[in-house]
Amino acid sequence: MRDAYHRQLEAVGQDLATMAGFAGAALAKASKALCEADLATAQTVIRVDEALDYLGAGLDERTVDLLACQQPVASDLRTLMAALRMSADLERMGDLAVHVAKIARRRHPECAVPQALAPTVEAMGRTGVELAGKVAGIITSRDAAAARSLAVADDEVDRLHRELLTALLDGRVVYPVETAIDLALIGRFYERFADHAVSLARSLDFAVTGEAARPRPPA
Amino acid sequence: MRDAYHRQLEAVGQDLATMAGFAGAALAKASKALCEADLATAQTVIRVDEALDYLGAGLDERTVDLLACQQPVASDLRTLMAALRMSADLERMGDLAVHVAKIARRRHPECAVPQALAPTVEAMGRTGVELAGKVAGIITSRDAAAARSLAVADDEVDRLHRELLTALLDGRVVYPVETAIDLALIGRFYERFADHAVSLARSLDFAVTGEAARPRPPA
Repeated sequence: MRDAYHRQLEAVGQDLATMAGFAGAALAKASKALCEADLATAQTVIRVDEALDYLGAGLDERTVDLLACQQPVASDLRTLMAALRMSADLERMGDLAVHVAKIARRRHPECAVPQALAPTVEAMGRTGVELAGKVAGIITSRDAAAARSLAVADDEVDRLHRELLTALLDGRVVYPVETAIDLALIGRFYERFADHAVSLARSLDFAVTGEAARPRPPA
Repeated sequence: MRDAYHRQLEAVGQDLATMAGFAGAALAKASKALCEADLATAQTVIRVDEALDYLGAGLDERTVDLLACQQPVASDLRTLMAALRMSADLERMGDLAVHVAKIARRRHPECAVPQALAPTVEAMGRTGVELAGKVAGIITSRDAAAARSLAVADDEVDRLHRELLTALLDGRVVYPVETAIDLALIGRFYERFADHAVSLARSLDFAVTGEAARPRPPA
C-alpha cells in the first residue's frame, strides 16, 4: 500500500518535470515563430500547450486523490500542496507561450518584431527557455539552494524587458502603434513566464524546507 | 474540537470574502487614479495591496494547518484546496490593480489615458470592480449557479478590451508610442483581473459541487 503511494508521489514529480519540458519547448517554438514569422511553428505551440493542459489536469486530479485517500502529513503534504501550485504555474507558462505564438500568427506573413529589436526579444526567449530547463532540473533534484538561486535569471528577463521598452521609446525610430502594442505585450508575456518560473521555484523550496516567504504586516 | 474546526473553516470563507472586497477596492482606486491622474489615490492602491497580501499569506498558513491537523475529506477537503487557489487569484487581482496604479503614477501629472479612450477604460474598470463584488457574493453564498454565470461578465471585459485595441489602431488618431504601450498593458491588466475572477468562480464551483472542468485529451 505504502509502496504504491510512494510510486504515485514520485510520478507527480516526474509529471511536473515533463510539464516543465513542455513549457520550455512551447516558449522556444513561440520565440522562433515570432522572430522568423514562421506560421507552421506558431501552430505547433498551441498543440504543445494542449498537451501541457491535459497533463496538468490529470496531475491535479491524482494529487487531490492522494490528498484525500492517503491523508499525508508533513513533507508529503507540503509536496502535494506545492505540486498543485507548480502545475498551475506550468500551465500558465504554456498559456503565455501561446500568447506569444498568437502575435506571430496575427502578423504573419509580416514579422511582429522589427529587426532592431529582434536581439532583445530573442534574448528574452532564450532566458525564458533556460529558466524552464532549470525548473525541470530543480523539480527532479529537489535542490532548495538551486531553487533559491533561480531568482537571478529572472532579474535578467526584467533587465531585457526594460531594454525593450527603452528601445521602443528612445525616439530614434518612431514605431507604428501596432508594433508598440505587440512589443509591449510580448515583453509582458516573457516577463510573466519568468515570474511563474520563480514562483514555482519558491513552491519547491517550501515543499523541501517547509519555509515559506511571508509578507510583512502592512504598516 | 469539531466546533472549533468548523469555526476555522468559516473564517477561511470570511477572509476570502474580505480579500475580494480589498481586490475590488484596489481596482476602483486604481481606475480613479488612472483616469483622473490622481497620484495620492495611486499610492493608496499599493497600501491596500499590501493588506491583501498579508491577509492571503495568513489564510494560506491556516489552510495548510487545517489540512495537516484535521485531515479533512470530501467537501471540506475540496473547500480548503479551493481556498488556496482562490487566495492566489485574489492576491493576483490586487497585484494587477497595483500595475494599473503604477502606470498612473509613472505618467503623473499627465494622464496616461487620452480623453477619447477614457470611456472604454472606465468601463473596463467598472466591470472589473463589479466582478470583484460578485466574487465576494458567491464566496459568501457558495452559490454554484451564480459562480457559473460569472463568466458572462468576463465576456464584457474582453469586448471592451477589443474595443480599446481597435480604437488605438483605427488610424483616426495616431497615438504616441508611449500611449500605445501604456494602453496595451492597461487593457491586459484589466483583462487578467477578470480572468482571475472567473478562475476563482470555477474553484468555488468545484468546492461546492465536486465537478471540475477538465480539458479534453489533445488530438
